[in-house]
Amino acid sequence: MTAAPPPRDCELCREDGGVVLWRDAFCRVVAVDDPDYPGYCRVILNRHAQEMTDLAPDERHRLMRVVLEVEALLREALAPDKVNLASLGNMVPHLHWHVIPRFRDDRHFPAPVWAVPSRDRSPARRVDAAALGQRLADRLAPG
Amino acid sequence: MTAAPPPRDCELCREDGGVVLWRDAFCRVVAVDDPDYPGYCRVILNRHAQEMTDLAPDERHRLMRVVLEVEALLREALAPDKVNLASLGNMVPHLHWHVIPRFRDDRHFPAPVWAVPSRDRSPARRVDAAALGQRLADRLAPG
Repeated sequence: MTAAPPPRDCELCREDGGVVLWRDAFCRVVAVDDPDYPGYCRVILNRHAQEMTDLAPDERHRLMRVVLEVEALLREALAPDKVNLASLGNMVPHLHWHVIPRFRDDRHFPAPVWAVPSRDRSPARRVDAAALGQRLADRLAPG
Repeated sequence: MTAAPPPRDCELCREDGGVVLWRDAFCRVVAVDDPDYPGYCRVILNRHAQEMTDLAPDERHRLMRVVLEVEALLREALAPDKVNLASLGNMVPHLHWHVIPRFRDDRHFPAPVWAVPSRDRSPARRVDAAALGQRLADRLAPG
């Protein structure tokens, strides 16, 4: 597959895309600033690629391993009712995964966070992003 | 992690959840009947589990391999502008992946298919589900 060149104005080539919780040479995990979804993370490929199948098989596996370590961490830290995983990229076609802890009383539940809200807002929940970053680093430490 | 027992009325334990294009002992790929999204597939775990991290690491890899073979097939067959992948399960918490070929002129683009539509309907596109099933069987043949 021939990779298309990155669009000149790709925001995920240009910027981190959120507060970086963890990164290596391949990808980064950022905290999404959404008051309705504390703990919402994105896993973003560092280089520009559009689809999972633009990656080599070992890279797909590596990226999913990070996505699923984030899922495991969020389950452990927040005990959500559900975790939502999604790679969409219709607006920003630079490979990134949404990892969203969902609760029965959150703003959109049981709908996806992109749908019409079910209620005005989510109840407040405290999430310590720095602690999440540290625990993620422990989980993803090589070796 | 202790697996919760399946809810007594889980529809993906009870039913295939669409026209089966391919299946093995572990999971199945079904065609979703949505006139706006021809080629829309779901990859559904056969047994009941809620989250990716409820699976053993080799099972996560096995399920993602099927998801990404479906992505590759849809790209080859339909040349979509983008592929959307999602595991949500807020309404039906039985592990399943949405694999959705997206086009710039489809009903919701660039929004997710769960958002408010951008237009009345998608232009008609012909997809031969039987041919997709055959090609998927070739891609997923053991060995």
